[in-house]
Amino acid sequence: MKSKSPSDSRTIMTTIVLTNETNTCNNMFGGDLLALMDRACAIAAQRHAEARVVTASVNHVSFSLPIPLGSTVEVIAKVSRVFGSSMEIFADIWVENPLNQTKIKSNEGIYTFVALDENMKPQKVPELIPETEEEIFRYKGAKQRRELSLLLSGRLKPSEAYELKKLLKKF
Amino acid sequence: MKSKSPSDSRTIMTTIVLTNETNTCNNMFGGDLLALMDRACAIAAQRHAEARVVTASVNHVSFSLPIPLGSTVEVIAKVSRVFGSSMEIFADIWVENPLNQTKIKSNEGIYTFVALDENMKPQKVPELIPETEEEIFRYKGAKQRRELSLLLSGRLKPSEAYELKKLLKKF
Amino acid sequence: MKSKSPSDSRTIMTTIVLTNETNTCNNMFGGDLLALMDRACAIAAQRHAEARVVTASVNHVSFSLPIPLGSTVEVIAKVSRVFGSSMEIFADIWVENPLNQTKIKSNEGIYTFVALDENMKPQKVPELIPETEEEIFRYKGAKQRRELSLLLSGRLKPSEAYELKKLLKKF
Amino acid sequence: MKSKSPSDSRTIMTTIVLTNETNTCNNMFGGDLLALMDRACAIAAQRHAEARVVTASVNHVSFSLPIPLGSTVEVIAKVSRVFGSSMEIFADIWVENPLNQTKIKSNEGIYTFVALDENMKPQKVPELIPETEEEIFRYKGAKQRRELSLLLSGRLKPSEAYELKKLLKKF
Amino acid sequence: MKSKSPSDSRTIMTTIVLTNETNTCNNMFGGDLLALMDRACAIAAQRHAEARVVTASVNHVSFSLPIPLGSTVEVIAKVSRVFGSSMEIFADIWVENPLNQTKIKSNEGIYTFVALDENMKPQKVPELIPETEEEIFRYKGAKQRRELSLLLSGRLKPSEAYELKKLLKKF
Amino acid sequence: MKSKSPSDSRTIMTTIVLTNETNTCNNMFGGDLLALMDRACAIAAQRHAEARVVTASVNHVSFSLPIPLGSTVEVIAKVSRVFGSSMEIFADIWVENPLNQTKIKSNEGIYTFVALDENMKPQKVPELIPETEEEIFRYKGAKQRRELSLLLSGRLKPSEAYELKKLLKKF
Repeated sequence: MKSKSPSDSRTIMTTIVLTNETNTCNNMFGGDLLALMDRACAIAAQRHAEARVVTASVNHVSFSLPIPLGSTVEVIAKVSRVFGSSMEIFADIWVENPLNQTKIKSNEGIYTFVALDENMKPQKVPELIPETEEEIFRYKGAKQRRELSLLLSGRLKPSEAYELKKLLKKF
Repeated sequence: MKSKSPSDSRTIMTTIVLTNETNTCNNMFGGDLLALMDRACAIAAQRHAEARVVTASVNHVSFSLPIPLGSTVEVIAKVSRVFGSSMEIFADIWVENPLNQTKIKSNEGIYTFVALDENMKPQKVPELIPETEEEIFRYKGAKQRRELSLLLSGRLKPSEAYELKKLLKKF
Repeated sequence: MKSKSPSDSRTIMTTIVLTNETNTCNNMFGGDLLALMDRACAIAAQRHAEARVVTASVNHVSFSLPIPLGSTVEVIAKVSRVFGSSMEIFADIWVENPLNQTKIKSNEGIYTFVALDENMKPQKVPELIPETEEEIFRYKGAKQRRELSLLLSGRLKPSEAYELKKLLKKF
Repeated sequence: MKSKSPSDSRTIMTTIVLTNETNTCNNMFGGDLLALMDRACAIAAQRHAEARVVTASVNHVSFSLPIPLGSTVEVIAKVSRVFGSSMEIFADIWVENPLNQTKIKSNEGIYTFVALDENMKPQKVPELIPETEEEIFRYKGAKQRRELSLLLSGRLKPSEAYELKKLLKKF
Repeated sequence: MKSKSPSDSRTIMTTIVLTNETNTCNNMFGGDLLALMDRACAIAAQRHAEARVVTASVNHVSFSLPIPLGSTVEVIAKVSRVFGSSMEIFADIWVENPLNQTKIKSNEGIYTFVALDENMKPQKVPELIPETEEEIFRYKGAKQRRELSLLLSGRLKPSEAYELKKLLKKF
Repeated sequence: MKSKSPSDSRTIMTTIVLTNETNTCNNMFGGDLLALMDRACAIAAQRHAEARVVTASVNHVSFSLPIPLGSTVEVIAKVSRVFGSSMEIFADIWVENPLNQTKIKSNEGIYTFVALDENMKPQKVPELIPETEEEIFRYKGAKQRRELSLLLSGRLKPSEAYELKKLLKKF
């Protein structure tokens, strides 16, 4: 299995915010953005794994900026690290004003997907070699986030959260 | 502003998993479940706040069990703690087999919503008094999760993550 | 087959009225509410029958109050009586104003579903024991409604509509 | 206001049954057909009234034949009688097998719509002159159905249901 | 295989323009109208061919008039000519103002469909005998349009575009 | 108004073919692909014009390859030439098999959009400078396609179709 770079899985999903996706403030519902990010991350995971994939977990996603009705939304998803059969994927959200083309990053989401073989069992995926500065930064942080995720879903004891302890111990 | 109990915001959203919400394994897409939970949590937040609400963040959500096409899905959302104008909300997912009515909890999601006044500024919401054992347990854990959320979105320095340190220091 | 109470099939479906479900008066389309009630009644029927179910008929549904865009709509469906393989189901519609949480009953719909076995033939369902005053009231009225339904679909002669005659003869 | 014939409001809505509109038996959901009929009836009511219209009630609809996935469904809606500002509308459902073009009538639905003026108050609609034999038959039956509808929604006392008494008294 | 007339395949699809189908000018998206026309043409093609059909190409469609939110849109599709297994289909678009029932033709689209047998191979369809003046006019123009279509998709050399040359040579 | 290159308007829309978008052969409906292309072209046109845009016409689109359910579809749209306030846009469709990542070009569509000012009047857009070989090739062909489009919609007399005559005269 040949290793791949994050750009091999890069997936762009551009769309327009429609009325049914907006709340009474005329901004995009958080839930519709979560589903859009999940769809883009699923395609990125398939492109890396060349296999069936399923969402395993969603890590922290914060919604800092409202996205108004009619905006152009560009979701860019890329695999940031792999752990055996699971892949951490970042979805960066860019919002454009269609009338003046100003473009700002509104937020990012981090999802974990698992690749499955034809018997629906987890299947190893190719290694990932980060290339850009941002890719390397995200690659490094993935270990802490994984510990956090396992901790929060009860599959890791706090006593074994070595990466997190390291992060918090510094202070 | 009279304080409320979690059961005051209890929101039940029962639905059937349709074909368009399923992946090639015939199980529900993670993204569609995320959007469904967000919708239920938004209604629970409105019921607590009696105000406009927007999704502020999604905390850890893990997808442990696949949800097959045609299943009955019941989302139960309740406010678990409030911090000024923000509310942490738990969405518990129950999956029923329609032919034999076996019912299992497939997973849970934790969302944070913020209440807004008519000028779209954050607005204080009523206090929350947890009542059942589970409500008290979730109420207590909310502080750590809040620190984590602020930490992950860069609005809290690791050195100030007192609750998390306490949790990890024990070991 | 153990008999069941109406509360065993109780199904709650809470949702928000979206723009695409509203007419030019900004109120919910009747047809979208009819479909929502059908979906909730189908789940209630499955919960009672533990079998595949299909809509057999819709009895009188009146739309007394308009439901504005953005309202929270709560559909509560419960089996009200069974006749062999068919089940009468009531869907009560409650509408909440999200900003002040006033809640009013807007209307109710009465549907009939039939349970099917794996060969798509009608299959007997458990008996129903009504418990609350309202459940008993609806249970009693079901016979007249059934006669009406058979009469209107041409499967009962007016001369045999004994329950209806009784109702109208009193006056 | 010039009187009109039923054919002036005749509305045809042809569509294909899609996967998301089908239950686990691969037949169209009753609720989706109810919504489709409502949409066609609303257009027919608008064509007669030349005004905003809203669904007032649904009379008996029975689902005698399952409609398989992929079928062509043709809904034909026509005003059958008017009472001041309200219009009774019949929706006839025809189902075609796309591969051999056999066409059968699967069922019919009867809806009542009300025309509204710009202040959302009921507004008188043109008189209706039935022309074909079937139009005359439906025109005549409308009075009984109207009594039934008022009776069932509690707006008519059983003692005043003269048309219904006449119908049942004969036997 | 008995020949058919265009009216045998006549398909009417009436609908209301919903909010999600409108752009920021509150007029119907071109893409949603294209999809609606395709659906109507597919049904017309099935009615002519009594077989599975797939879209082969879209010929020129121009959008001369905006279609406002809430309009009634009537698509009328009819086969205009057949060439072995392929059918040219015209979709005429009529737009009604629901409040005064003025009705104008907004535009027309021309699609080509191919009939397929059970092995997904092209299958001959019945001959078409045009009847009305308009049907004959469209029947005659179909040859030029077909040449154009083959030319544009690279399946015909310009030197062999006899019909087009004839058309342009006149001047 | 600074001139732009086609890459400035480049819009990528990646998605998965869902069940509701497939016909009975389990391949994507032509109409759904037409709507997807229109959405991508509209965003490309907005990116070039920095203004509201509406679909003016669809030029020839041919569907050479079926797109199976579950495929990843990537639409890439770029402005190919401008004429005052109108823009010709190419949408190239790439289809990926998610399990082995083979990727083929299935077809292309050509759309024309018009930019509108705040009074909904056509508004001039920036000039376009093609850069790559393919961009130059498409830029050159746009004049013939434009003549064809005007000819087909009756806004150009055959005698004035100079570009087309030139094309056909060569042979």
